[in-house]
Amino acid sequence: MKKVETRAVNIGNVVVGGSQFVVIAGPCSIESRDQFLNTAMHVKKMGATILRGGMFKMRTHSETFQGLKTAAAPLVQEIKQLTGMPFVSEITDPRQIDFLHDFVDAFQVGSRNMYNYELLKELGKTKKPVLLKRAFSAFVDEWIGASEYIASGGNENIIMCERGIRSFDKVTRNILDLSSAAIVQMETPFPVLIDPSHATGRPDLIPAMSRAAVAVGADGIMIEVHPEPKEALSDGFQALTFEAFSSLMDQINPFVSAAGKTL
Amino acid sequence: MKKVETRAVNIGNVVVGGSQFVVIAGPCSIESRDQFLNTAMHVKKMGATILRGGMFKMRTHSETFQGLKTAAAPLVQEIKQLTGMPFVSEITDPRQIDFLHDFVDAFQVGSRNMYNYELLKELGKTKKPVLLKRAFSAFVDEWIGASEYIASGGNENIIMCERGIRSFDKVTRNILDLSSAAIVQMETPFPVLIDPSHATGRPDLIPAMSRAAVAVGADGIMIEVHPEPKEALSDGFQALTFEAFSSLMDQINPFVSAAGKTL
Amino acid sequence: MKKVETRAVNIGNVVVGGSQFVVIAGPCSIESRDQFLNTAMHVKKMGATILRGGMFKMRTHSETFQGLKTAAAPLVQEIKQLTGMPFVSEITDPRQIDFLHDFVDAFQVGSRNMYNYELLKELGKTKKPVLLKRAFSAFVDEWIGASEYIASGGNENIIMCERGIRSFDKVTRNILDLSSAAIVQMETPFPVLIDPSHATGRPDLIPAMSRAAVAVGADGIMIEVHPEPKEALSDGFQALTFEAFSSLMDQINPFVSAAGKTL
Amino acid sequence: MKKVETRAVNIGNVVVGGSQFVVIAGPCSIESRDQFLNTAMHVKKMGATILRGGMFKMRTHSETFQGLKTAAAPLVQEIKQLTGMPFVSEITDPRQIDFLHDFVDAFQVGSRNMYNYELLKELGKTKKPVLLKRAFSAFVDEWIGASEYIASGGNENIIMCERGIRSFDKVTRNILDLSSAAIVQMETPFPVLIDPSHATGRPDLIPAMSRAAVAVGADGIMIEVHPEPKEALSDGFQALTFEAFSSLMDQINPFVSAAGKTL
Repeated sequence: MKKVETRAVNIGNVVVGGSQFVVIAGPCSIESRDQFLNTAMHVKKMGATILRGGMFKMRTHSETFQGLKTAAAPLVQEIKQLTGMPFVSEITDPRQIDFLHDFVDAFQVGSRNMYNYELLKELGKTKKPVLLKRAFSAFVDEWIGASEYIASGGNENIIMCERGIRSFDKVTRNILDLSSAAIVQMETPFPVLIDPSHATGRPDLIPAMSRAAVAVGADGIMIEVHPEPKEALSDGFQALTFEAFSSLMDQINPFVSAAGKTL
Repeated sequence: MKKVETRAVNIGNVVVGGSQFVVIAGPCSIESRDQFLNTAMHVKKMGATILRGGMFKMRTHSETFQGLKTAAAPLVQEIKQLTGMPFVSEITDPRQIDFLHDFVDAFQVGSRNMYNYELLKELGKTKKPVLLKRAFSAFVDEWIGASEYIASGGNENIIMCERGIRSFDKVTRNILDLSSAAIVQMETPFPVLIDPSHATGRPDLIPAMSRAAVAVGADGIMIEVHPEPKEALSDGFQALTFEAFSSLMDQINPFVSAAGKTL
Repeated sequence: MKKVETRAVNIGNVVVGGSQFVVIAGPCSIESRDQFLNTAMHVKKMGATILRGGMFKMRTHSETFQGLKTAAAPLVQEIKQLTGMPFVSEITDPRQIDFLHDFVDAFQVGSRNMYNYELLKELGKTKKPVLLKRAFSAFVDEWIGASEYIASGGNENIIMCERGIRSFDKVTRNILDLSSAAIVQMETPFPVLIDPSHATGRPDLIPAMSRAAVAVGADGIMIEVHPEPKEALSDGFQALTFEAFSSLMDQINPFVSAAGKTL
Repeated sequence: MKKVETRAVNIGNVVVGGSQFVVIAGPCSIESRDQFLNTAMHVKKMGATILRGGMFKMRTHSETFQGLKTAAAPLVQEIKQLTGMPFVSEITDPRQIDFLHDFVDAFQVGSRNMYNYELLKELGKTKKPVLLKRAFSAFVDEWIGASEYIASGGNENIIMCERGIRSFDKVTRNILDLSSAAIVQMETPFPVLIDPSHATGRPDLIPAMSRAAVAVGADGIMIEVHPEPKEALSDGFQALTFEAFSSLMDQINPFVSAAGKTL
């Protein structure tokens, strides 16, 4: 039923949308050298190939922790070098492009900014990959529409990321809409990732939903990991411990093979 | 993370909740001998082990086709004998128990009746397995609560079935909530099935969501199949053709192995 | 824009759908003679003209209070006589019709049973008014479809009741969908009531939503009142105290006049 | 139950949040001198006191009409002078502040930008009123959180606007959540408007929902009007004709009086 051929996108030296099932992992927010380095080393050892970490955080209330912002830059550069991993981080304002462009291997557009078309248009003028998360209750048509705002500027290095949508049942933080991933793969040339951390908000469900993400045909997953989830400055409740992340990698392994891919 | 041990339930000679990934298949409504027999023979040949077919149909409008009702009984009995497959059909009224009890191997409670506690209490007095679908927008807690109405009567032969919940995006008929299946497996002893036909309403998405159902750890799937979907008297738009059903079985096969199960 | 003329329905001596804005009030569940009588006397004094009170309660979990059931009958008959008010109560099983028919002036079909078509068909064979609540996430088309199951049996004494639908924000119990009331008034001949108690689940919002119900053009409201909400055996959190109910009646009064109706 | 006193906000010479029920009206997009001038003259004559008109439009797809943008400025200035009405228009990028600041009397932040905190922070540095629409599926807590991003910069001239939220039933474009308006009035000092045009997407429902907005206690409404809705370049399906707008004003009038306010 696949209609449109997926065009792979390179994040640093990692090909997203090819025969590798890509695991992006790291903390929600970069908090300190130790926290970020230890997390990076662990997820790399376990098979993650791209590092994530928030510098500019979008938070519901203005008085909560908003990220280390530009102060995180030296840390990021050091740890990229130490690990050799490409790095993805969220951009929240067109005026951050110049600053982030030098050391970010892909711009992440968070759910809150999927409709920020002015930001998308500016990212369309760069050549850097853009990881475009679906908004909290975006129609699939709107999510695809948002990708057009980037592509129309000339940048087709787009990776779509489904991260759960709002629903009536608060037993999970959101509802993971895996069918949307399948639709986007049929209707666009862009690789699709799944973020089970935000989708469920529950570490006990992340492995099951990650296995499902593999089986549905997604090109990878994006996972929040923290050395001490209870001490995290943002979204700690949904972060996996190192041990839980190791178990997750073990669990997805046979399904990645069944999908004809490698980790 | 599994908290509660799953207790297998037998539907006829088929064990649901054990090492077999169970495929229940058949038409939405039983329409004629040819339609039902041909469908049954095909799905059996391809590996389905339980037959489904609606006799009493719940339809939004009273003037649409409501099923063959009691007139379907001789057909069902003949085709059960010809195929040797156990048979599941929907019950919509406590007063149908006596009639259905003789030839149905499991009572299906549809989404519209999940909250019909008087029906559930009556089914709790039987020993026959009950396949309990989640209502269109039931909280997981309500779905589990509904199972308690059956179990409190003494019948613990309960199988839960997630069939998609209502959401804002009509690109699919419903949103398949796979995390609910994982939660029910953790919190109850009941096996859990997935119905990707109702969840998506789209044949082009059913294979992907069936693969995901396997990987999330569900105990089986329930699929609508019709010899000529466009001619179906109910829900034809979501029925698989014989060919599409064969392809579906091929597609789930490696994932069933990856899950350590058999078909 | 009104397309279909509303046909008034009589509940006892009260005309629903005419020039009177009807207030139905009473406790969620009938718990005792004192509780029910005191509530009835108070709501009557303040201008309510129809009494409500649950005998058969639908509860999420089977072990919670399920109503006094048939034991409430003598109480109801006594208090109907003392107050002279017609009485509405919920029916949850077709087999309750004979019992309830004698002393109930209208059958209420709760949200959980809107899709219970076998029950609706049986109610269609009576001549008693049916107050049909919208299910938790019923499409307006399904709600109207449910009314057809009653009407097709010959009973057109139908009153529709919007009671809030499920949504993503738990700041209220449900979201009151007033536009659905306006649509049902345009598309069917049935009067429409609003239940702001279930819609909001918050006494502090019930007056504002009741005023809005008047202004949107609804034919009445249905309000839960309890002498001691904190002691209630069901849904006490959303019940109004006597004092709050009095204030509510004062608040809707000028809007009822603005709508060209009387209380 | 009112907890927090509403602090009125001046848009030009019009007080929002006082004893006047404010009607903001105008076209979705400014398309031409004739279209905008005729609409402005008509809505003024019928009692609207603030003019709206989109210059920068946020559209789902990048190839659709995106507004006249800066080219609309001379038109706006001329028509403001001719009508004497203050003017509200949407801002979609922090870099538009300088341009818009001179002739806009309030910045509108659309639903798509409610989470655009960088934009909100920049607007917080101005003194100009900000009309903050609720996002498509924002929790009330997030909507209030967004207002804090503006207020924390020093600009407390904030007006909240509920415009409907996403729901499962496409019989209306969105579901108008009037209870959210009541909650925001209790919990913040900001006036609250209702936008029934976007909430319903149906001209036949706008009058009923506008009456309900008055009765719930909102401080005003925001209505889309177009001389020829079928010819509109954006959202014409939900625009009122001049005649329908006149009828709307007639219909809300008695409810405004009942609310103790004036038009």
